[in-house]
Amino acid sequence: MINRREKVIVGNTWFKQVLSRVSTVDSRQSTDIMMLSSQSDAPSSQQQLLLQLPKPSNNLVRAMLTDLYQLTMTYAHWKIGKHNDSAVIELFFRKNPFKGQYTIFCGLDECVKHLQSFQFTTEDVEYLKSTPSMAHCDEGYFEYLLSLDTSQLKVFALSEGTVAFPKIPLIVLEGPLGLCQLLETTLLNLVNFPSLLATNASRMVLRAHPAPCIEFGLRRAQGPDGAFSASKYAYVGGFVGTSNVQAGKDLGIPIVGTHAHAYVQAFSSLDEVSDLTLFNNNTMQDEPFLQHVLKYRPENRSTNDGELASFVAYACAFPHNCLCLIDTYDTLESGLQNFVFVAKALDDFGYKPKGVRLDSGNLAFLSVRCKQAFDEVIAEQPSRRDAFSDLTIVVSNDINEQALVDLSKTRHEITSYGIGTNLVTCQAQPALGCVYKLVEWNGRPRIKLSQDLPKVTIPGRKRAYRLYGKDGRPLVDFLALADEQAPIAGGDPVVCRHPFQQQQRFKVQPSRVESLHHLVFDGTAILDRFPDDLSATRTYVLTQLQNTFPDSLTRHQNPEEYGVMVSSQLYEFLHSTWEKEFPMKQLE
Amino acid sequence: MINRREKVIVGNTWFKQVLSRVSTVDSRQSTDIMMLSSQSDAPSSQQQLLLQLPKPSNNLVRAMLTDLYQLTMTYAHWKIGKHNDSAVIELFFRKNPFKGQYTIFCGLDECVKHLQSFQFTTEDVEYLKSTPSMAHCDEGYFEYLLSLDTSQLKVFALSEGTVAFPKIPLIVLEGPLGLCQLLETTLLNLVNFPSLLATNASRMVLRAHPAPCIEFGLRRAQGPDGAFSASKYAYVGGFVGTSNVQAGKDLGIPIVGTHAHAYVQAFSSLDEVSDLTLFNNNTMQDEPFLQHVLKYRPENRSTNDGELASFVAYACAFPHNCLCLIDTYDTLESGLQNFVFVAKALDDFGYKPKGVRLDSGNLAFLSVRCKQAFDEVIAEQPSRRDAFSDLTIVVSNDINEQALVDLSKTRHEITSYGIGTNLVTCQAQPALGCVYKLVEWNGRPRIKLSQDLPKVTIPGRKRAYRLYGKDGRPLVDFLALADEQAPIAGGDPVVCRHPFQQQQRFKVQPSRVESLHHLVFDGTAILDRFPDDLSATRTYVLTQLQNTFPDSLTRHQNPEEYGVMVSSQLYEFLHSTWEKEFPMKQLE
Repeated sequence: MINRREKVIVGNTWFKQVLSRVSTVDSRQSTDIMMLSSQSDAPSSQQQLLLQLPKPSNNLVRAMLTDLYQLTMTYAHWKIGKHNDSAVIELFFRKNPFKGQYTIFCGLDECVKHLQSFQFTTEDVEYLKSTPSMAHCDEGYFEYLLSLDTSQLKVFALSEGTVAFPKIPLIVLEGPLGLCQLLETTLLNLVNFPSLLATNASRMVLRAHPAPCIEFGLRRAQGPDGAFSASKYAYVGGFVGTSNVQAGKDLGIPIVGTHAHAYVQAFSSLDEVSDLTLFNNNTMQDEPFLQHVLKYRPENRSTNDGELASFVAYACAFPHNCLCLIDTYDTLESGLQNFVFVAKALDDFGYKPKGVRLDSGNLAFLSVRCKQAFDEVIAEQPSRRDAFSDLTIVVSNDINEQALVDLSKTRHEITSYGIGTNLVTCQAQPALGCVYKLVEWNGRPRIKLSQDLPKVTIPGRKRAYRLYGKDGRPLVDFLALADEQAPIAGGDPVVCRHPFQQQQRFKVQPSRVESLHHLVFDGTAILDRFPDDLSATRTYVLTQLQNTFPDSLTRHQNPEEYGVMVSSQLYEFLHSTWEKEFPMKQLE
Repeated sequence: MINRREKVIVGNTWFKQVLSRVSTVDSRQSTDIMMLSSQSDAPSSQQQLLLQLPKPSNNLVRAMLTDLYQLTMTYAHWKIGKHNDSAVIELFFRKNPFKGQYTIFCGLDECVKHLQSFQFTTEDVEYLKSTPSMAHCDEGYFEYLLSLDTSQLKVFALSEGTVAFPKIPLIVLEGPLGLCQLLETTLLNLVNFPSLLATNASRMVLRAHPAPCIEFGLRRAQGPDGAFSASKYAYVGGFVGTSNVQAGKDLGIPIVGTHAHAYVQAFSSLDEVSDLTLFNNNTMQDEPFLQHVLKYRPENRSTNDGELASFVAYACAFPHNCLCLIDTYDTLESGLQNFVFVAKALDDFGYKPKGVRLDSGNLAFLSVRCKQAFDEVIAEQPSRRDAFSDLTIVVSNDINEQALVDLSKTRHEITSYGIGTNLVTCQAQPALGCVYKLVEWNGRPRIKLSQDLPKVTIPGRKRAYRLYGKDGRPLVDFLALADEQAPIAGGDPVVCRHPFQQQQRFKVQPSRVESLHHLVFDGTAILDRFPDDLSATRTYVLTQLQNTFPDSLTRHQNPEEYGVMVSSQLYEFLHSTWEKEFPMKQLE
């Protein structure tokens, strides 16, 4: 998406500038056009320009995709002239998902696209005026909404794909209180699911390693966008491909897939494929394929004819990519046998067969039996080693993280995993609970108190740093006030304190200090790391999980907690703010 | 959406017809325009017409939102000329979700919109040609994809919102095999989540009854569309409103919301609201409001000033709709007290205060304490009865079906529920497992066999009927072959057989027979029940659950299974097809 060179001015300011440039912009650059205004005539060329801004992948992501209370609260602020007060807001989570100790931060690119295209339309405002909740609001408020843009907003964030921890602000917004309020729900929606999904995917990838994982969840996902996001963020989390063709086309993710049970069922007799020919790479001519296959089926072997016909037809259509689903009728007695007959014939014709897919039954056991069958072919005819020694055995029935853990303890010959429902719905924990908290208002710290310590917000405008030890591993994440001196590698030891436990503190002499927050939006989009390049984000994720952080963090059983500490100054600030906000009670 | 009067011809046929009508169509009827083709110039007026067809709510719903294997299977069919074979396919589920005994069928309207707008673009085809999986496919196949439309398709379905049961086909497609194959994944995606969500919502509504439920899930939903669908289908399932403004605007669902913790935190002192005035309905003039409120705060009562300031500001902005979130600092010691001060002042000014929201703590206990506080006000000043006797007490922290069941057994004074995460992500079961199975091919029955009886498909083109008893209650759902005589009320007794248990059978003399399948698409859209009118669908759902079916079906504890039986003819057909497909094995 947007990089520095292509910066555009957004909001009304942008709109005015762009109108003055109408004649100089080449409209052929646009590939996607959407109406934003309420009028029904064909879009004017000016409107088309407006519509050419990078916009969220999903047409539902608009200023109005927010909770009503954001609009009522903003009205109440507007009523007393607080809507343009300066606010600092942090988006963060309090607990890692899936009983784990890490979370992959994702969704930033869509957030920035939303900020760029954020705008209320006259149609939106007419609707709001028609609701009982807002019917009594002053007209001036609606004018304010129509004029609202994101030009006064500054946003800092972690890079897309960063391994993140509780309390670390994923996104920090600095801007007018009213605008920040209106953005809350949309940004939470755009971060929560992508981060949850990428984390879920990465956990499955770690469990399945070295066998690759493929995403098969489109049909069971929570809506079309749940599916599309799942394909995108599963890839970022380390999956190697998806079955979702739209995601492949729009995002450049490798697409994967061969055939289903329905395909096998669509055949009932060998007659249907008796005329099929296939180019024989050895004789260099088209030859009938079925009769070649049947040479390998013993007379007394009653494998299912329809199934065999379907495999023959599939092999003739995709001789280079013949992977057969073998459990439609009887996996070992029919499917596996039929595949072997076809694979032998393909091998004879000079094609390398691809393998089998198992979608039911005891997957570990069946994979071993498949591998045995392939090895028997080689034992009988060593010349078939190239064709039969590394056939794919992909399994795809109800895989989840626990199933992968269990399989890792069992003998199996599975070479890859197709994962659907449990990945895309994040069955083990279907929501990440990111929150969005005001930490500073007109320069003054704000705190949300709670009996429940993890729910207390740490006040003030802050920045996060990752401190590395001598071994190059991250030691701790460190939160300090934004105006504090950043810790320096090789500088004075850094005092790290637990935000709430007075006695928990230590000093660190970091070998490296990574500043985690980057400016990603300053009224215009600035995204300088990976958002356009999913594959680079994916590499970043995998590098962090496989090289940067220790296994103790990412393992399934009793992973170790990673520390998030605060500076001494922030510690003092937090507790003095707390006491000011909630003075000691006097018992009577 | 589309009704009979507004029928349009879809696909290429439609396109040709529409082109000939260009000059006669009023383009002002269009409200939403999207580019479907790959070209980048402004849409021509012809293209705009194409773009004016009702299309799925979500721009990601396109022909390409499908699994790759649908395209590879269809290619293999095309290669041997089977792509235009006639297929009958059923979309159904095998198990009710949430350990329940019913499912609400939803998503049909979006399916029909997808059928209407189904089309591959040249850009799609170029992409497919560039993938390793399809690079070797014959050019003719891509021409076939580009020419493909849904004009040869007939679709029968249950009405949107019908209470449905396992094995009953929700949707039946009759059309060319290749096309039906390509539609599978998209239709499953468009039915699975809406049906799951509406079912989940309806279960919560039944548990919460008579207190209404409001959907608050936007921020935690699985993507923007997960949220939008949740708002839509929660309403259909019986919720009374949503916080999602976009859903309110696009779908006409009542929107609900007041303010959040962040609003309370944005105030720190009473000085901020000391100048605020409110129109006094009794004196008919603007009067300072804070000093009126402070009359009710005893000198020694140290409720949080910032919180009180926020309530005062909110009351002045929304005097008719003042509902305060009271748990930011201390629910009973601060929030509840502050609300009572403000509510008394509002009452004095001639406004009816609205109530409170609780978002943490022991909700039942706190609701009782709130109610007690309101009753004490009335006891002290009976003139305040109107203002304080029916204040709303809405709770909104982590509510799920089990929490509602638990609350129903506890003393509480909760008047409504705001439900987010657990509703919109369907936490208790995040996916409905609808399947899509070929049951007839070129007039011949197809069956999918499995060791697992519930996974065996019932072959043949079928129709479903709901048979009612004398008491007007449904007795059983009855599946028969499409060419069988439909059962008739008052006719011969109907023999109902269990599809797999030979001894389970009975006769029914139905007092009423409801034909469950309706033609909803025959190359053009025909939707004759509710799809445009969510509120009518909602009424249909609630009527079925509260009046038509007995409580024994819908209750939380041990609900009773509802019968789905087959006709004698279908029973014979099923078992003879089974034997033909899988002849008896001979042991050796």
